[in-house]
Parts: sequence; C-alpha cells; structure tokens
Amino acid sequence: MTRATDPASLTPGEARALFRSGLVTPTAGWCRGHAQANLVCVPRELAFDMLLFAQRNPKPCPVLDVLEPGATSGLILDGDVRTDLPLYRVWRDGELEAEVPDVREHWRDDLVSFLVGCSFTFEHPLVAAGIEVRHIVDGSNVPMYLTERPCRPAGDLTGPMVVSMRPIPADRVADAVRISGRYPGVHGAPVHVGDPAALGIGDLGRPDFGDPVRIEPGEIPVFWACGVTPQAMVMASRPSLAITHAPGHMLITDARDSDYLAP
Amino acid sequence: MTRATDPASLTPGEARALFRSGLVTPTAGWCRGHAQANLVCVPRELAFDMLLFAQRNPKPCPVLDVLEPGATSGLILDGDVRTDLPLYRVWRDGELEAEVPDVREHWRDDLVSFLVGCSFTFEHPLVAAGIEVRHIVDGSNVPMYLTERPCRPAGDLTGPMVVSMRPIPADRVADAVRISGRYPGVHGAPVHVGDPAALGIGDLGRPDFGDPVRIEPGEIPVFWACGVTPQAMVMASRPSLAITHAPGHMLITDARDSDYLAP
Repeated sequence: MTRATDPASLTPGEARALFRSGLVTPTAGWCRGHAQANLVCVPRELAFDMLLFAQRNPKPCPVLDVLEPGATSGLILDGDVRTDLPLYRVWRDGELEAEVPDVREHWRDDLVSFLVGCSFTFEHPLVAAGIEVRHIVDGSNVPMYLTERPCRPAGDLTGPMVVSMRPIPADRVADAVRISGRYPGVHGAPVHVGDPAALGIGDLGRPDFGDPVRIEPGEIPVFWACGVTPQAMVMASRPSLAITHAPGHMLITDARDSDYLAP
Repeated sequence: MTRATDPASLTPGEARALFRSGLVTPTAGWCRGHAQANLVCVPRELAFDMLLFAQRNPKPCPVLDVLEPGATSGLILDGDVRTDLPLYRVWRDGELEAEVPDVREHWRDDLVSFLVGCSFTFEHPLVAAGIEVRHIVDGSNVPMYLTERPCRPAGDLTGPMVVSMRPIPADRVADAVRISGRYPGVHGAPVHVGDPAALGIGDLGRPDFGDPVRIEPGEIPVFWACGVTPQAMVMASRPSLAITHAPGHMLITDARDSDYLAP
C-alpha cells in the first residue's frame, strides 16, 4: 500500500490481499461500506455450544455467518479465513499461545469458524453524521474493556461481556445511539452510557484490549457490546483449542454495511 | 374453559394448563400480548446443524430460545414443553409417526428443543390497526404452503421454505408490511405479496397445512415466512427422530410481543 492510498477506499479483496501479504494494522476505518467481523474458530464438538452462546448473547455476539466445519471461505468471504486477517490469536486451554499474521500451521479440518459482527461497521455512518470516531482520527486501536456483566452461559461456555468505548460529545450521544441502533446485527445501540464504574471498569486509561484514547471535556464515554467477548469466553472456559482475530484486527467481509440495517 | 372466556384474555400459564389438560385447538388469537412459538426438538448430535439451519434461514426460523439438552422448560417457558402445547407431531426418519397432545412417552434426555418465532405474535398488532385476520375471524387454522424456494442448507439439513398466507385488502398491504416488519424476531415483513405462482403455489384453496380461508374481492394474498419450515426440513432430511408442534397449534410463551419489537 502506498501512503497515498486511503484505506477507506479499498475494496475488501484489496485489503485482504494486503493482510495476506503481511501488513499488520487495526482495521477501523478500512473499506468504507463493508461489514467487518470478529473471528472465533472452535473444534466441531464445541460448535453447538458456541453457536448457542452467541444466540443467547446477541448484543456482544451477533452471528453474521458460520462456515462449514474445516471450510476457510463462505458466503460473505471470498477469501481465506486462515490468512486474510491482519493478526490472529491462537489459544490452547484458554491461554494465549501465539499472536501471528497467518494461522495455517495451527489449522485443523474440524475447526468451525464463526464470523461475528463488529462495531467498526457502523463507524462510517457515525462519521458521515459528523460524529468524530476518536480512534480513527488518532490512528490507534479502539479501547476495549472486560466488564463485570456476565454473559448467559451455554453448555460449559461462560465469561464476561467485553465492551468497546468511544467518547462522544454530550449533545451527540442520542444521535450515536440512534445511528448505531439501526445496525443490530453488528452490536446495535450502546449497552451503557456514561458510567464506567457501573460496568466494573476502574480506569478508562487502561483498557484490557486495544489502546486508550483521549476524552475531551464535554465528551461522555459510550460503551458498545464488543465481539472480543468470545475471547473473554475462551479465557474463562478454556477450550482445548481456539483461534480468534487479535482485537481490532478484523476480518473485512464482502457483505455491505447496509445488509445489516434494521428493517 | 367456559364458552364465555375470551382466549385472547388468558395468561400464557392459563392457556398452557388448558392444553395440558387435553384441549386441542389452533392458538391464533390466544393470549394477546404474548409471543407464540413453533417447536422443533432434535437429538443432541443434530443440534448444531439445526441451530445453523435456523441461523442461515432467519426469516422462516427466527430462534427465540434453545433449551439445554433434555430440558423441558426455560427462560421464556415456565412450563413443560412435552405437555403444554395443544398438539404435537412425532417424526421418525422423516415420516409422521404420530399426532398426539402429549409427547412424554416419546421424550428422550438427549433432545434439544428449539423455540422458533411465530407470526401469530404480530396478528394482535395487525388487528389493533384495524386489519382483519381472516383465520381468527373465521375460527379456522391459518393456511400454510410448501414453496419452491429452497432454504440455505446446514450440514445434512435441507428443505423448502414454508409460508403462511393472510388475505389483506389492497389498501392495507403496506400497513401490514410495516406493522409485521417491526417484529423481525417472529418472521417480520412478508417474503412475497400477491403472486402465489411465483412461489410455486398452484391452488390457494388447498394449503399443505392448516385450513383454506376466504379471499374477498379486492384482497391480495400476502405471504409470510413460516415456522413450519423446520417440519418441511424434517420431511426432506429425515432425521432419526424429531418432535414438533402440529401446524397452528403453538407453544404460548411467557415472553411479550414487545420483546421482539425491532429497535
């Protein structure tokens, strides 16, 4: 990618080719108009519990698609789920074993890939409405936090909800709620506005994932359910193997934002 | 139930007690304000494919809840899924084995129960808007039809979409679309308006499930995706065992219609 290329104007195929050839970067702001996705791959014997966990926790885990066992592409991914994300995490027994740009050496034919909606999808509509998305402007990763709010369990799978945070001017909070609420398939409206302590978040300056961001005077921290929640579930539930994206380093799908607009 | 009791005014618990004690009737119009559900129970080894089939076909198969393997009650059902519906169907290898008001003798501890949204849920809002629901007025079961539109398969599970039909005056079709569209969790907006042949339906007077209804001059047949679709899947895919509701004879849940309003 030349410096002159605006990541927002790339097609999903162009972006995935860059990541496949080694570029590592958070993907907020990339490929305007296209849906981004969280990735979590688990062995087939856990796939029902994982899908049920997602079904029971639709705010943090809105399922966009599930690939066939062993499959590496699908209806909204004309690519390879093992190479086309900028960065992955490989988990053994709930412990982070590796953070790598390619997971082909860890792949198994019994892995089932879940593509889970990502709030980056509605950031372009926020920007189009004149609402600044701080981590895009500052070129950093979105801040994400473990909360004290438990997910509804499924089988042996359990864990806390993870949230992403964007500081929003007080007079635009209602607009941010309305606009993101139009996209329930990619986390939808915020789960919490303005009170980090109520979620068990002690220090906004120390996110559990991603980077801290500036909060300007007059801005309110607004919290959206986050697709890193399955990673918190992996840490809590300790499956023998799981492969996920690295937080903020998403799968850019061929689906359009507008595919996930509420009716 | 005395004849003086209006089924619309019963609580879900009262209705389920009547069905548990042997009353057999279609449930359209019952328990105003409460969500009704289709039921499909499959063995645990098919549960992932069933949940994936539903996830891939959200218009006919919107999942309201999934019970734990062997469980007979859950978050939106303070009752017993084996006895609290008016009528069930038991399927072996895709063939209808029995139609019975109680399935306790067929129950197995590895069965997983899927509660799938039902369009009866948005009939009360249609009626409240002055749109007559013909099968309620006439005291018959809603007409349902197999279509030529295939569902997206999942594993070995496949089959055609089933639709329900309501005749709507031409000048109220748009209202019926808007009102039902507010409830995407219970089939939402129609999948087709006005052209049965395009769905492969030859004769509206001969539904595949339920009863035919009068279509008055100036009324247009409007088709909604239907939760009998999993039964068409059972017929096509022939799992060793499945238990479902009998078409139109639904599970009345403790959830409210308003729980499924779009954001």
